[in-house]
Amino acid sequence: MRLGFIGFGEAASAIAAGLAEEGLRELYAYDVVSGQALAERAACCGVRLVASLAELAAQADLVLSLVTARGALTVAREIAPHLRVGTLYADLNSCAPRVKAEIGQVIARLAPGACYASVAVMSAVPPLRHRVPLVADGPGARRLREALEPYGMNIEVLEGPLGAAAILKMCRSVVLKGLEALFLEALLAAEQEGLTEQVLTSLNASFPKTSLGDLGVYLLDRHRLHAQRRADEMQEAAETLASLAIDPLVSAGAAQRLRWSAERLTGLAAPSRAEAEVGGEDPQNGAYRVLLHQLSDA
Amino acid sequence: MRLGFIGFGEAASAIAAGLAEEGLRELYAYDVVSGQALAERAACCGVRLVASLAELAAQADLVLSLVTARGALTVAREIAPHLRVGTLYADLNSCAPRVKAEIGQVIARLAPGACYASVAVMSAVPPLRHRVPLVADGPGARRLREALEPYGMNIEVLEGPLGAAAILKMCRSVVLKGLEALFLEALLAAEQEGLTEQVLTSLNASFPKTSLGDLGVYLLDRHRLHAQRRADEMQEAAETLASLAIDPLVSAGAAQRLRWSAERLTGLAAPSRAEAEVGGEDPQNGAYRVLLHQLSDA
Repeated sequence: MRLGFIGFGEAASAIAAGLAEEGLRELYAYDVVSGQALAERAACCGVRLVASLAELAAQADLVLSLVTARGALTVAREIAPHLRVGTLYADLNSCAPRVKAEIGQVIARLAPGACYASVAVMSAVPPLRHRVPLVADGPGARRLREALEPYGMNIEVLEGPLGAAAILKMCRSVVLKGLEALFLEALLAAEQEGLTEQVLTSLNASFPKTSLGDLGVYLLDRHRLHAQRRADEMQEAAETLASLAIDPLVSAGAAQRLRWSAERLTGLAAPSRAEAEVGGEDPQNGAYRVLLHQLSDA
Repeated sequence: MRLGFIGFGEAASAIAAGLAEEGLRELYAYDVVSGQALAERAACCGVRLVASLAELAAQADLVLSLVTARGALTVAREIAPHLRVGTLYADLNSCAPRVKAEIGQVIARLAPGACYASVAVMSAVPPLRHRVPLVADGPGARRLREALEPYGMNIEVLEGPLGAAAILKMCRSVVLKGLEALFLEALLAAEQEGLTEQVLTSLNASFPKTSLGDLGVYLLDRHRLHAQRRADEMQEAAETLASLAIDPLVSAGAAQRLRWSAERLTGLAAPSRAEAEVGGEDPQNGAYRVLLHQLSDA
């Protein structure tokens, strides 16, 4: 297999280095940037630099696009007419789901003999290199996994519409990056009042050694009972931040979301037994799923 | 010691039941509501109901106010003129810090012989009853701890301005209730696309068995390096939610907060060694503290 990278920045070179160690020898790369630094990075992991996208397409059986979210569609359009029959084109950029789908349409139209995989990179690449968790969808997803798993890559295939992996990544980002923003906002206030350590200690004591997804289920399983009170308290917390001269950017949004939910839940019937079983065999485990369905339908 | 409750709802009766089991015999309560249910709840834990705030003040050495955030200031104003010299008045309602401080001023003005403790209840009362973690500040905070710890109550005393405990609770609420709102928003989208389990599994895999405060420190320790990228990705995630017909109430606020930070961090000098040690002996542990200071000053 001959593997080609479009873009040879930090992520691509980390993956290439890992694959080279696993014994993958025929590695190619094209980057719009040229120069000494790029040449050295490529030489380090035995990657041959090529001068154009057309040349990359001529060399590679499998192309990984690792440019930027903004550049992803453009490079796909540029390389597509050059892709040979049987080439697998995988987009690993952090694009919106609709852009992932659009790239798939571009490949299908301009390179009908090639095959497309839409890939979401689920973690920072450098520490994990080629072993970084990837989720792939699209017609080429299984072929991508079959081609790269023997070299230690970690690829989960998602059934679903083109771009499903990108939606998965976005939902994950909402929680993780949102949590970062929340901590930033809360601790700006806490630090100003000399209370940072107490806030952290209190959160550690309430939720020790909890996996983050499980914590979400815990919170949503109990949400229905407490939605109105929590909406009020979040509103109060947002006002308190404002009184401490911290603009409640996330907090006010969270108060709105909780109020939205509390209003919809008011007067909604408790879920029927059938509804309560949406989440699986055990109705207890499914309370948060029932909640999500009811809120979507309300 | 004779203990009086203002308000005898779910929280007060749970605490009273626990204290009665610990051997505290002289318990009194006043509630604006009257009737069979209240009488039975009081009888259950040997609490004597009194007919007025004045009567409660006449009986009790220690008064715990457990009404509502909205009613807290009003009952304090009403009972204050009746409080005897030496009485300890503790407000346990979820009021804003400035209301907590205002209650302190009311007590100081109208009941100069009494003593005030401003108390934040850090967890839901019913499952933990009298052992629920409390944080107290104000002139009566230590006396409150000394009076109630022998009966198994769990009271941390905070130094700081009147209302500091309430600020601590609010900062904690921003993270916890904000996280609930984030999960709600992210999983409304995920469930609609059939991806809920994948999102939860991915979050569990990335942050298994992590205490919540430690997770916050982890995210903020790395924030400086990634602020701009995370702000862009959060913006993209918010737009993706909107494209899925989920109003990005929290996500858009989080994107704003991350952008606010990224803009302030751009061009800021890396922290000096002295600044990097703000957080303690180990500069590594203090990176998030330095970040908070720099953002506050910028």
